[in-house]
Amino acid sequence: MSLANCKVTETNPLSGEDAKWVKLVKTVYTDPNGTTRDWESAERCTRPVGVDYDGVGIVAVMEHPGQPPALLLQKQFRPPIGKVCIEVPAGLVDANETAEECALRELYEETGYRGEIAETEKSCLMFNDPGMCNTNLHMIHVKIDLTKEENKNPKPQLEENEFIECFTVPLKDLYAECKRFDKEGYAIDARVGTLAEGFELVKKWNFL
Amino acid sequence: MSLANCKVTETNPLSGEDAKWVKLVKTVYTDPNGTTRDWESAERCTRPVGVDYDGVGIVAVMEHPGQPPALLLQKQFRPPIGKVCIEVPAGLVDANETAEECALRELYEETGYRGEIAETEKSCLMFNDPGMCNTNLHMIHVKIDLTKEENKNPKPQLEENEFIECFTVPLKDLYAECKRFDKEGYAIDARVGTLAEGFELVKKWNFL
Repeated sequence: MSLANCKVTETNPLSGEDAKWVKLVKTVYTDPNGTTRDWESAERCTRPVGVDYDGVGIVAVMEHPGQPPALLLQKQFRPPIGKVCIEVPAGLVDANETAEECALRELYEETGYRGEIAETEKSCLMFNDPGMCNTNLHMIHVKIDLTKEENKNPKPQLEENEFIECFTVPLKDLYAECKRFDKEGYAIDARVGTLAEGFELVKKWNFL
Repeated sequence: MSLANCKVTETNPLSGEDAKWVKLVKTVYTDPNGTTRDWESAERCTRPVGVDYDGVGIVAVMEHPGQPPALLLQKQFRPPIGKVCIEVPAGLVDANETAEECALRELYEETGYRGEIAETEKSCLMFNDPGMCNTNLHMIHVKIDLTKEENKNPKPQLEENEFIECFTVPLKDLYAECKRFDKEGYAIDARVGTLAEGFELVKKWNFL
């Protein structure tokens, strides 16, 4: 199996009646002047009832004595963009689980690693593209202690239609590695690229 | 005019035939084992022909002697999420303009400020939610020199259906301010929140 085999062979319009995973909606709203307007957008169909977010992104930092802290990343072919994307581990929330439970479950399923929640307070709920869709996620920060027995031989538990390759990048190299992957034709997920931009801003403006 | 007046009054299913701005697509693809599968996703209808991205996000840092560097942000009501969102200035690319031209144009239109491109090399192309949609953007880094005459009395050039309030946050306070806005009921755009998370990672892991 190789991600290099993946390719898009056809792209077709999809009607709302035939769609199971995504849908279009028209929102009627009142603008700041009291005028009624409408807006078109897209949504996932998978959000559990009563939950106000779709899933989690996982900032998983690998800790190992004598090695620089490294971010756990993934390569995954994404049909909507026709490219292999560099991403943080992520997943959709199930009904009846917290964002933290979702993060530890998805981390284990996708990477085989057992993580520990690094922050007691989860991140702000973040909206991926709020002019176009309602999709959003919590970023959950997790530490992976590589000295632990359970993390010495990680075995992902992937579903039969999931194909994910894991790798790590030292945090200090993330920006340069994003540039390199971009040049090589990979797509960069916004979470990965924007974390890297955050690091560069700190370097450039020296404000911490 | 007040963003507090904005509210969603109705949300309805939207058929593909009636939609002008967004669409659903079904992609047929080959997985790493050579198996043919399909995937549902959403796209904007606005991307110019021959262009491989939708728009730009603008990291605009305000420079003024004696003041800490501050990020220019916006409040904007977003019908797809029914909330006022904290965002970086952003916009969709027109045909026949570069990402940098788009950034300077949108910055001026939305905020009234004249920016200068801060980096000769633009960021990686970043994908907002690549399992769900193809939307993507370049993050363009811009400096705004507040000592310049042209930036002393900024006048946004908004369209009649655009309602945007600008404000600034010192870079060093971005994470705390995101938390505060989140608690107050604002939505946090992923670019803003993830930059702030990048700053926190630098503080926590001290890797630069």
